[in-house]
Formats: sequence, C-alpha cells, structure tokens
Amino acid sequence: MKKLVLTGAAGRLGSYLREPLSQMCDRLVSTDWTEDIGKLYPSETYVKADLGDLEAMEAVLDGADMVVHFGAIGDEAAWDKILHSNIIGAYNVWEAAARKGLRRVVYASSIHAVGMYPKTQRIDTEVPHRPDTYYGLAKCFAEDLGSLYWDKKGIESVHLRILSAAQVNNPRALGSWLSYDDLIHLVQQAITTPITGFCVIYGVSNNDRVTVDNHKAAFLGYRPKDNAEQCAEEVLAAADPADPHDPGQMCQGGPFASVEIGFSGTASMNIVQDKKEI
Amino acid sequence: MKKLVLTGAAGRLGSYLREPLSQMCDRLVSTDWTEDIGKLYPSETYVKADLGDLEAMEAVLDGADMVVHFGAIGDEAAWDKILHSNIIGAYNVWEAAARKGLRRVVYASSIHAVGMYPKTQRIDTEVPHRPDTYYGLAKCFAEDLGSLYWDKKGIESVHLRILSAAQVNNPRALGSWLSYDDLIHLVQQAITTPITGFCVIYGVSNNDRVTVDNHKAAFLGYRPKDNAEQCAEEVLAAADPADPHDPGQMCQGGPFASVEIGFSGTASMNIVQDKKEI
Amino acid sequence: MKKLVLTGAAGRLGSYLREPLSQMCDRLVSTDWTEDIGKLYPSETYVKADLGDLEAMEAVLDGADMVVHFGAIGDEAAWDKILHSNIIGAYNVWEAAARKGLRRVVYASSIHAVGMYPKTQRIDTEVPHRPDTYYGLAKCFAEDLGSLYWDKKGIESVHLRILSAAQVNNPRALGSWLSYDDLIHLVQQAITTPITGFCVIYGVSNNDRVTVDNHKAAFLGYRPKDNAEQCAEEVLAAADPADPHDPGQMCQGGPFASVEIGFSGTASMNIVQDKKEI
Amino acid sequence: MKKLVLTGAAGRLGSYLREPLSQMCDRLVSTDWTEDIGKLYPSETYVKADLGDLEAMEAVLDGADMVVHFGAIGDEAAWDKILHSNIIGAYNVWEAAARKGLRRVVYASSIHAVGMYPKTQRIDTEVPHRPDTYYGLAKCFAEDLGSLYWDKKGIESVHLRILSAAQVNNPRALGSWLSYDDLIHLVQQAITTPITGFCVIYGVSNNDRVTVDNHKAAFLGYRPKDNAEQCAEEVLAAADPADPHDPGQMCQGGPFASVEIGFSGTASMNIVQDKKEI
Amino acid sequence: MKKLVLTGAAGRLGSYLREPLSQMCDRLVSTDWTEDIGKLYPSETYVKADLGDLEAMEAVLDGADMVVHFGAIGDEAAWDKILHSNIIGAYNVWEAAARKGLRRVVYASSIHAVGMYPKTQRIDTEVPHRPDTYYGLAKCFAEDLGSLYWDKKGIESVHLRILSAAQVNNPRALGSWLSYDDLIHLVQQAITTPITGFCVIYGVSNNDRVTVDNHKAAFLGYRPKDNAEQCAEEVLAAADPADPHDPGQMCQGGPFASVEIGFSGTASMNIVQDKKEI
Amino acid sequence: MKKLVLTGAAGRLGSYLREPLSQMCDRLVSTDWTEDIGKLYPSETYVKADLGDLEAMEAVLDGADMVVHFGAIGDEAAWDKILHSNIIGAYNVWEAAARKGLRRVVYASSIHAVGMYPKTQRIDTEVPHRPDTYYGLAKCFAEDLGSLYWDKKGIESVHLRILSAAQVNNPRALGSWLSYDDLIHLVQQAITTPITGFCVIYGVSNNDRVTVDNHKAAFLGYRPKDNAEQCAEEVLAAADPADPHDPGQMCQGGPFASVEIGFSGTASMNIVQDKKEI
Repeated sequence: MKKLVLTGAAGRLGSYLREPLSQMCDRLVSTDWTEDIGKLYPSETYVKADLGDLEAMEAVLDGADMVVHFGAIGDEAAWDKILHSNIIGAYNVWEAAARKGLRRVVYASSIHAVGMYPKTQRIDTEVPHRPDTYYGLAKCFAEDLGSLYWDKKGIESVHLRILSAAQVNNPRALGSWLSYDDLIHLVQQAITTPITGFCVIYGVSNNDRVTVDNHKAAFLGYRPKDNAEQCAEEVLAAADPADPHDPGQMCQGGPFASVEIGFSGTASMNIVQDKKEI
Repeated sequence: MKKLVLTGAAGRLGSYLREPLSQMCDRLVSTDWTEDIGKLYPSETYVKADLGDLEAMEAVLDGADMVVHFGAIGDEAAWDKILHSNIIGAYNVWEAAARKGLRRVVYASSIHAVGMYPKTQRIDTEVPHRPDTYYGLAKCFAEDLGSLYWDKKGIESVHLRILSAAQVNNPRALGSWLSYDDLIHLVQQAITTPITGFCVIYGVSNNDRVTVDNHKAAFLGYRPKDNAEQCAEEVLAAADPADPHDPGQMCQGGPFASVEIGFSGTASMNIVQDKKEI
Repeated sequence: MKKLVLTGAAGRLGSYLREPLSQMCDRLVSTDWTEDIGKLYPSETYVKADLGDLEAMEAVLDGADMVVHFGAIGDEAAWDKILHSNIIGAYNVWEAAARKGLRRVVYASSIHAVGMYPKTQRIDTEVPHRPDTYYGLAKCFAEDLGSLYWDKKGIESVHLRILSAAQVNNPRALGSWLSYDDLIHLVQQAITTPITGFCVIYGVSNNDRVTVDNHKAAFLGYRPKDNAEQCAEEVLAAADPADPHDPGQMCQGGPFASVEIGFSGTASMNIVQDKKEI
Repeated sequence: MKKLVLTGAAGRLGSYLREPLSQMCDRLVSTDWTEDIGKLYPSETYVKADLGDLEAMEAVLDGADMVVHFGAIGDEAAWDKILHSNIIGAYNVWEAAARKGLRRVVYASSIHAVGMYPKTQRIDTEVPHRPDTYYGLAKCFAEDLGSLYWDKKGIESVHLRILSAAQVNNPRALGSWLSYDDLIHLVQQAITTPITGFCVIYGVSNNDRVTVDNHKAAFLGYRPKDNAEQCAEEVLAAADPADPHDPGQMCQGGPFASVEIGFSGTASMNIVQDKKEI
Repeated sequence: MKKLVLTGAAGRLGSYLREPLSQMCDRLVSTDWTEDIGKLYPSETYVKADLGDLEAMEAVLDGADMVVHFGAIGDEAAWDKILHSNIIGAYNVWEAAARKGLRRVVYASSIHAVGMYPKTQRIDTEVPHRPDTYYGLAKCFAEDLGSLYWDKKGIESVHLRILSAAQVNNPRALGSWLSYDDLIHLVQQAITTPITGFCVIYGVSNNDRVTVDNHKAAFLGYRPKDNAEQCAEEVLAAADPADPHDPGQMCQGGPFASVEIGFSGTASMNIVQDKKEI
Repeated sequence: MKKLVLTGAAGRLGSYLREPLSQMCDRLVSTDWTEDIGKLYPSETYVKADLGDLEAMEAVLDGADMVVHFGAIGDEAAWDKILHSNIIGAYNVWEAAARKGLRRVVYASSIHAVGMYPKTQRIDTEVPHRPDTYYGLAKCFAEDLGSLYWDKKGIESVHLRILSAAQVNNPRALGSWLSYDDLIHLVQQAITTPITGFCVIYGVSNNDRVTVDNHKAAFLGYRPKDNAEQCAEEVLAAADPADPHDPGQMCQGGPFASVEIGFSGTASMNIVQDKKEI
C-alpha cells in the first residue's frame, strides 16, 4: 500500500491507530481538525482539514489507496452538530474517495446504529437499522452511503460497528468491550482483506457475554483475543440491581438507549461532547 | 381526526391526496412551497411553508394528530439539494411532530431505498437498505429517523415505499405500478389503523408481476385492486430486448439503478428536477 | 367416516358444529357436561360425559375415527379450573383416543397460545409459544400433547388456533374475526384432509387486516371467504384512540394480553366464566 | 420473437403447447424423435431430431431466440435410459443453446426433483434438492446445469417444476394438479418476462390444497386460475383411507416417493414408459 | 444476593449445586421432600417442603431473590406422577415466586422438551417444542409458564435444557454430556447475568459432537470447558452398530424417543423412577 | 469395521488416506485404475478397477461396510470425461453399494458444487447448488444421488465439500485451505459417527478467513486444528491487487469461477487434467 489516510487522528481511537497504520503503508497521512497531533511516526505526516470541506478532503485523499475514516463527533450531540460532522462529513469522505479513485473506505460505525435491540436478542450484521440517538442515526446514514458507493461507483467499504472501547467498569461492558489490541487487529483485517465489497462487522472482543454475531462477516478473518470476563466478578459485585424494563440497561446501545438520556439536545444533557471517538 | 397535515400538497402525488384526506378529518392543512394550490376542498386550508424551516413546520403541525409527509424533491438531484429538502426536511418534520405531540407520521418513502436489489430477488420489508441514488439514500435516512423517534419518543410512523406511480408504459411498470386509487387506499390504511408503531410497506398495486413482499405489513389491511397486467401485451411488444446484466433493467430501482444515469450530479444528467413526487 | 365425536357440543362454537358434522359421518356422538342439548340432528346422539373422567372419555370414543375436541373452559379462569378442564381434560381426550385407536384429534386451540406477540409482528404457525393467560397456557400444553402423541403413537392432530369468533364490534376483531361459515369450513378441512400428521393452523376469516400467517398449513386447503372489513368504517369511528404501549391493544391476544386483566384469578376479575367456547 | 424451438413436441404436454407457442413467434420449430406429428399450425415446422445428438440439436437451435425443452422420458425408467435422454439430452440442449447464442431455455422440470419432502412441509423454490427417482435426479441435474450456464455463459433458464398434469382422480391431485390452461399461461410467462436469469417455479394450478410456494418467483407474473377443489368431494369419497407413514402418500412426489415402487428398474415395475411427458 | 432457594436439593444434580450456590449468597435455603440432606454448608439451611403445596412453597420463597428450581421427578413416569410433581409443582414455584416478589426462576428444563428432533438436525433455542415423553411434555409446560410469568408479571426465568448429566458411556453421550463443572458454571451464569428476561439455553458441555445451538442465548456468557470426545474411541468401539431408523438412536432425546420404551406408564417399563434428576 | 473400500487410492488425496484408513478396519481394499499403488499398508489390498464398470464396482464392494469414494477426475475437464468418470462413476458406486448392502458412502464432494457464490456471502451446507464447472456440476449430481439412495434405499452418505487441499500460496487459500491432518480427521469422523443419514459438510481447516459454515453438520464432531493464517502476511504481500468484480477472485470457487477459464473444454484451457484429486 502506498498511501493511507486516517481521519480523526487526534481522537481517542484514532490515536491508537496511528502507529500500526504507519507500519502498513509507505505513507500515512493523518488528519483532524486540531493544529497538530504531536510527534509523528516514521512515514506519517499530519494535515489539518475539516471534514465539512469537500475540497479539503479531496486534497487529503489525492493519491491514496484507502481511507480509514474515524473522524466525527464521538458521542451524542445536538442535531446540527451531528449533521455537520457525521452526516455531511461522511458524504464528503466518500465523495472525495470516489473522485480520487480510492479503492476502499474503512469506517468507524457503531453499535448505536442498532442500539435499540435488546441485548437478549442476538443480532447479526444484516438486521434492519434501529438507531438509539442522532449519533447512531448518522452511523446508519454512513452505512447506507457506503452501500450506494459500492453498488454505483465500485468503492468498497468496511463498516466497523464498534460496541464500546472504554474500560470494563460496568456490566454492559462485559459483553461490549473492544480492547485496543483487538481494534487494531480489526482495522488491519479490514485493510488487508483482498476483496470486501460493502460489508459490516461488529467491533467487539472475544467476550464470553457477547450479544452480537459476526458470522456473516467471517471472511474478514477477524478473531479477537481479549475477553472482558476477567473483570466479571468484580464488576457484577459492584453493580446495582438491573431493571429489566429500562432500555438503558436492556438494550444493545446501553445508556444511549435510555429514554431519559437521549437525543433531545437539551442543555442539561451533559453527555454531549464533541470530538470524542465512539 | 381533528387536524391532519399534508406536506408536498402541490406535488404530483400530493395533489391526488388532497381530496380524500380532506374527507377524513375536521381540518386538513395542506402545505408546500408554492404560493397557492388553487381551489381548496371543504375543510382544507393551505399554508406556504419551507420544509427546511423547523419553526415553520412547528407552526404548521401545531394541534395536528398526524402528518402525511409527501414533500421532498421527487427525483434524483444533486447532493446539496437532496440534503436540504429530503434529509433536513425529514428531520424537521419529525422533530416538529415530536415537539407538537403528534401521534404519527405517514411518509412517502420509495423503492429507491432498496433499489439495487435485483427484481428476480423477492424482497420483503425488512431487507437491509440498498439505495440506488442520493434520492434513495435520503429515503433510507428518513426510515431510520422514523425508527428512532418511535423507539425514543413514541411517535409512530408508516413508511410507504412507493414503487412507481407513473403510467404503465414500460416493462418495469408491469411489476411496479401503483394506481392512484391504490395509493389513496394505502394512505387511508396508514392513517386509520389504530396502532402501527414503526412500520414499512411497499406501495404497489396488485400487479401479477410484483417483485416485493408486503406480508410482514399485512396488519395494515392494504389490499390493492388494480393490476398493470392489462397493459402487458402492448408494453412487452413495444419494448426493446432486455439486457439481463444492466442494473437499470434488472434491479428494483429501474433507471435509477443504472450505472450511467446516477447520482453524480453532473450537468448533463437532466433527470434532476425539483418538486416532482416519487 | 363411520363415527365422529364432538366434545363441548353444548358450547357456543360446538353448537354451530353439530349440524355440519352430523352430515359428514354415519354417526355423530356429541358430548358435554350438561344434561341434554336439545333437539338432535339425524345421525346424532348425545352423551353426557366429564372431560375429567378418562374412563368416560374412553367409552365415548370407542369405535370412533376421529374426535373434534372443543370442550373446555372457554375463557380465562382460575388455575385450578383450567388445570382440571383444559389440561387434564386434554390429556384424557388424547389418551382415550390412543387407547381406542382413533386416527385423529381436531382441537380447538387458540390465538392465546401466542397472544403476547405484538399484532404488528406477523406470526406463522411455528413461532415459539407465548401464552397470555392460563387459558392460553393450557392451549400450549394441548399442542405439545398432540405433538407427543403423533411422534410416539401415530395419532394425528390438527390444532385450530381460533382468533375470535365473536361479533365484529371492536378494532381488534377487524383482524381476528372468524365467521361461523369459515369455522365450519376449517373444521371440515381438518377432518377430510387425508394426511395431516401434527399441524397447527390459525382460525381466522379472510380479513384484510389479518395478523397471522397460515402459509405453512396451506396443504389443508383452508380458504376462508368472509371478511370483517365491511365493518371497518363503523367500528373504527366508534373506537377510542388506541394506546400503542398497552399490551391489551397492541398484542395478538387482545384484552387477554392486558397487564391489568389477566391470569391472577382474583375475585374482581369477572371475565372468568366457565364453559364458554374460545 | 423470430424463432422458437419446442422439444418433445410429440409428447403429452408438448402437444398442448404447439398451438399457443406457434402464435408467439414468427417461426416455431417443433422437434421430437417420431417421424411426424400430424397437421402443423401456421408458422410451425417439424424436425425429427434425437436429443442425444449434440450436432442435431445445434442444427435445430440455429437462429432461435429461445428453446422450450420438454423432450425427455416422462416417467421413471431404468438408469441407462434416464442417463441418455434426460441427462445427456439436457446437456445437449444447453450446450447447443450456448453455441448458437440463444437467450433462454424454458425447461420442463418436475416436482420429483424435490419429491421426498412431506406434503405437510411447505416447500419454496430454494429448498435443497430431494429427488424421489432417477427421473427426479435428472431434473435436479438439469436445474444445476441451467444454473451453471447462466453463471458462466449468460444463458437464462426458467425451470418449471410441474407437479401433475393428469386428471384430478386421486387425493394427491387435489393439491398437485396443473390444468392445461395454466400450463400454457406458465410457459407464456416464462417466455415473455424480459429478464429471468436462472429461476425455478412450481407448475401447479390455483388449488386450495397446494403444497408448494412460488413467492420467490412471483416476478414471473404466473397467476394460475384453475382449481382442483371442485373435484374434492367426489375424489375424497372414493379414496381409500390414507396411511400417514407411507412415503407414497405423504410425500410431494406421490407414488414416485413410495418405497416399493421406485427407481430400481426391475421388470415388475411397469410404470416405466418412454416418451411420456411428466 | 441475600437469599437464594434451591429445590430438589436432595436430587442427583441438586446435590452438586448446593456448595457452589451456598457461596453465591448470604443465605441458601435448600429444599426437597426428604427429611434431611445431611451436613449443611455454611450459609445453608434445609427445609422439607412438598412442591405440590403452594402455601409451603410461598413460605420457602419468602424473602428470596431467586429460586433455582431443580425439584421434580427426574425421569419418565406415569402421567399422574408427572402431573403432580412436574406440572403442578412448576406452577406452584412460579406462582409462589410471583406472590413473594422474586426476581427470577432458574429452571432445570431438559432436552426432552425437544427430544423428537433428529440429532442430524441442528436445533436452536427457538425451535417449536417436540417432546418425547410425559417428562418432556412437562418441561414444555414449564417453559411456557415461564414465558407467561415474564410477559405478564415481569418474573424472569432461565430455562436450562440439560442434555445428559450421566457418565459418557454410550455414543449419544459424546454429543449430549454435561459435566458437573459445566453445570455449575451454567447455573452461575443464569444467576449472575444482570438481565435475562425469559430465555432458554441448552445445558451441554463443549463436546465436539454437539447437536444443539446456543447462539441465541450467547448473552448469558456460558462457555463450557469439558469435552466428551476424550471417551470417543473407547465408547464407539464398544457400541453396537446403530440403526439410523430407530428414533431411540437417531433423535435428540435418545432412549426417551424410542417407540418401544415410552410414555405409556406400563409396568414393564422400569425406567420410571421418582426423584432422580434429569 | 470389517471391510472398508477406498476409491481413487492412487490420487493425490487418496494417497494420504490409505494409511489412516488401513488402521480403522480389519481390511482396507484400495482401488484405482493404475496397475498398482506401490507398497501396501498392513491390512491393505489393492484392486485395479474402473469406476465406469458397475460389475467391477460390485465385486470390489462385496462384503464391505462402507466405501470412501475419492475416485474421479480431480479437475475441470471436457464434458465427456466428466460424464464418464464423475457422473456415471458416482452412480456405479452408489448402485453397487446398494446391491451389496453397504451402510454408507463417504464422498469427496467439492466447494465447486457451490463455487459461484461470492466469498463475501457466508454459505451453509443447505444453500442451493451453484456449480462453477462441469466438475462442480458432477459433484452436485453425486450429492443428489446420495440424497436419493438415502431416502429410497437407506444408504447413508456423507458429502465432504473439500475447499482446497493445495499449499497456501495464494490469497484464496487463506480461507479455503484444508490441511492433510484435518482431511484425515474429517474422513475419520464421517466414518465413525454412528448415524449420519444424508449430510453435507465443508472440508476446510480452522482458518481465520473461512467463508463457509458447517454449523448444521456439527453433529459429526469435525473440529479442524490447522489454520492458514500463519501464511497470511507473506501471501498477501506477494499478491497482486484483487479485482472485486472478477468472479475468479470474488467467488468461492476461485479460478474455476472465472469467466475466461471455464468449462468450455477448449484446447487452450490446459487446466484439464485427469486423475488429480480436487
């Protein structure tokens, strides 16, 4: 691979991907909207660019083979913000990729595209969308966008529905945790698999309590190694009793699926923060 | 029903709906962006309003029970236009409906949300999205939006994936035709069914050669009566031989699925016209 | 057919079946627990017998080809009553049929065996049981009993999951109504089909708004003719607005699925009445 | 359509197809292995040709648009005969069609390709093959052959799994009957549908007791009109009691599925006759 | 967990569960119908109680969080015995749990609820019931009972369909064996999973030759470790040739599925023994 | 096992099976069409025999319990050759097995029976056939043949759809590789499983990038141990960029699925070689 582009390089997950991606290509171009991202890895360069600016994205993608698109608001936010960064931003990445003849987009989708399914219902990668937030709604949009560009323009895309990449400090994470090592493995498979077409895969470690099903995407060869179960006893002992009728506890999307905390964008809902990943 | 709102009332399909809808409620508010829509039916009033203006939509929906949302660019168009009218416009309708406490949105979705499936593959109402154009992509978005507002806000929505409402003058229409009578019947069922939750149904007549499957939405009681087969002999005799490898001929979306005519928004693609329905 | 037995012959549905069944066999033996059932049809005899008495059932079934088993408490009731009449009673019928070498049991099962599914979810005849009451639970039991006797003893059984056989005077009935003519047709098919093995079929008329799916039982040739839609306009106009979150309104089982009215057997729940059918 | 070829034109079903096919094209070439087939229809010519002779088939198909392939041994027969006429014969037709650039093969397949499924199990057009005889095995072969030539050479094929085209004089026929009118309608749809790719459809009338499911082939617009139910009362009254454990009575293939009568090719099995259709 | 109740504590499987369960709660109440169960573990108390006595069960469950219900006749038995211990007994446990406000029932269901499926057919946790004995029929009943109490009363239940917990001394056990360690792990998961709703899971070790499919219950995090394959060579060498048409050898239920040995309750069938587990 | 027969014993895969099979029975009869196969293993004898000669096959199979049928042209070839060796040859083996009362045929089927499915589509063992060559077509035939002899004659068969048994020297092999050790394990399970009926299983190692799904055949206890992933980095680095629209690269069948290289039997297509395995 000659040139690879990483968007959202300054974000939480993007930061972890810079080093391994820099080793997979002749030239890694990292991009985000901050001024700089600190010390660069060999083969890496940094370009400040706004996802909302199509011409800027074209310039960044020029000559690249693939783009790993992790840049977006990484949490629930007001509609206008999601619209700008996550919907229009996704369009700009795919359209620029098509104009510049890239082969593939590897995209940080999310469990929140299907977050309203109960965790007791095993979901595979072809269940109908069921978003839990504006954030999840934008992930649905980008998946459909990838489908369109594959069918009409031949641009491949791999949509990584990441479950949760935080620490294992709550019962939901026993099933949803994605370790950084497994994340890196997942992105590598999405890049090196010779043919992917349009496909979707859940980004989750090899947890005992996993609630999603990747068997339709098995051809990608993603075999996670980490397992949150080592934290189960401690986490469960510390947890309050669960309410089996609270969407925030019973649904795949966790707190995003809660009725109270949601997508209303009100001032009191302080989970809205820009530029965090996933 | 006390108050019902119809968007896109000046459009091709909207025009046909005004009279039957006016008979189903105490007060029908028709809206579009033209200055007026001619002679009004008893119980009907007309309000000029822009779908892109959330406050305007709130004012129109105030006090309504349901909104029948047919307003949008009714054909493939450049991304910016689709974004404004069909994506942001849909958001504004649902958000206004939520703020004003409406019970349900009846939405003119389209076969183009799944237009890239081959016609030889029977598709039901739960297949994954597979849009054929920006137009279809926006329909996917609005379906996911409806799912979100039902799961989180309790706003019901019925998504009518209309196949084709034009004349039966080409082979595709033998399978895809929706007569105006059947359209009216379909919208009536979507309104009068006591509980719908979030649901999707194909809008197509009782054609012999139908390529889609409504059995999962049977509870709506939609039983179309018209059948395009009466035109089959004439239409098939006049048609050029089909190419089984041309997406424009083999796919559900018809011409929208074609590789050549598509979503690129170039100047030479003169299928882009605003404010036509479906 | 030489001898046919009808249980529950004094019940609401049983009464309608006596005449048509009497015309399908040399000898119809009607049975129930009342002293008599009035004027008999040619070929019909009446025997008072208690479903709870295995020896009595053996005597009634002796020499019969098939039994049409409609005898049971026809409504939700206290556990002890359901246990006696509907669970032990069903066992006695199947066990007597096996001892006396009958070929087949035609059984009045009920939608209440799967009453907790939402009406917006199309259910076929192989969905897992999901009873809404003790009454429905006993129907589940009898279906499993029929499966056992078919697999182990070769006794065929046709389980008619009747939806509602009352008048069309509420919105649910628009989808669930089974006319008496269609009921008779259904029972006739269940009797005359040469081979049935163990099978399940929904008993519902050809209503536009039907919520269940009989395609897996199509070999029985049941094609209902009546349609509740003729009552739709009147019924819907008279109905209160529906609550899409009330199980009693959104579920297949209707009022039986309601949280408030239920299977608790308390004194205030005056829907408990013995010996009504369905 | 300029030229159409019909094989098996002297056979039972072929004879019925000659006239309607002769009206669908400029030139119908009928072929079989008899010397002549009597009076010809306008536009029809007859050519004697052996299915076992590839060069002869090439000559017959030269210049044709499509071939309707009904020529084969129409009943169970010894392996060598089935091999020659039904397996090698099918290969010759498809290979000749490919060499001569035909667009499509319309093929008389049979329920016996899936004859060992119980009639109580609804089967659609994608269930795995389950042949009941050598005859059925050859039908399976030709279906797979059609799949291969479509995927590799672009030759379309429509495989008509005919159930039974005899009179309605036994209980099985109540479900399996295909009237001649419906047969003609079916073949016409298979010819006139603009794009078919490779597809399979059951050839059966609109019988109440149908045991197969054509919904995946609905795009062909086949809507049969006849119904064997009018004979039900008479047929069932005359029938012996059925044995629910006899494959010959419980399986889709009827007598072909019987253990006793079968594919052993013994002398006592006088159902083996050449050159009958289906 | 403050208080946990174990029924069937004197039974074969119950005995193994006492110690691990005693370590998972402040107070374990073990119950059965024997006078005592020998030496108690710390935190354990023993109460003699009859499953057939609702009031007694209410007293035992008072104040408990969950009940692990393993008490029942553990083998095929005459109908009256199964009715009393396994059907009425199950009702009493669930009803007492509801009256006393317990959160969850963990239930020893059995493969015999679906024992008549062939082992060559992979079955998941949602296949329709297909019991092989009265014993299995009662398990079906209890599963449906659990479904009802979850839907109507909010009582969660986990139904462990145990395959076989005996030694690995016959070919069937190579696929069906559940080791005691894996049993304990399974029960622990059923207790500690924060939300289960109503769910079913097969109780079987990580055997190479497993015939059932737990993927829909994966959220429980049950990952068995033992594997019967270590005994395969020895067991298979010692076994008689199998008969592929004998239900007792080809079906999931093993000997319970046999035609000869069955549910008839005759004196010669000495597999009927009370109070053994599974 | 007293007597076991291996056909194709001189072929590439057959050679590897001789030793392990010789250890599983009292007497192994190896057969092929070469004069001899070199040094024999204890218990092994060699018989030269032509698969095309039914009487010869009868003689070889006389007294055997099972036959492991690996003899066939192991590559794409002209139709006449495939017909003789792979279609008629398969018939002869099954018919001889039936005449001589064998219990089971273990058959070397191939991925090429379903080779036209894209590798991005996970396929299980019940997808409809979709052959990529005459070679694959003959495998389809033999599978259907096995189904027929099981349903009608009670001859069991296990169909091993081997993916690729060559070295791991190309990207496809990362998913399709079957190691010799895993092949031997697979054949052993097919032989020792007490009851198999008719079944299909993919022959592939435990590769990370596997594209097929064996869960429906899990009862055979096949758990492969080798994994081609160790070669991934080297193989992928050496590979040319893939073309996602080339069937030869995107389909399960690999080069056999290519349009250019195919089943046309032309002189320039030098992949046609007799007597290689798979």
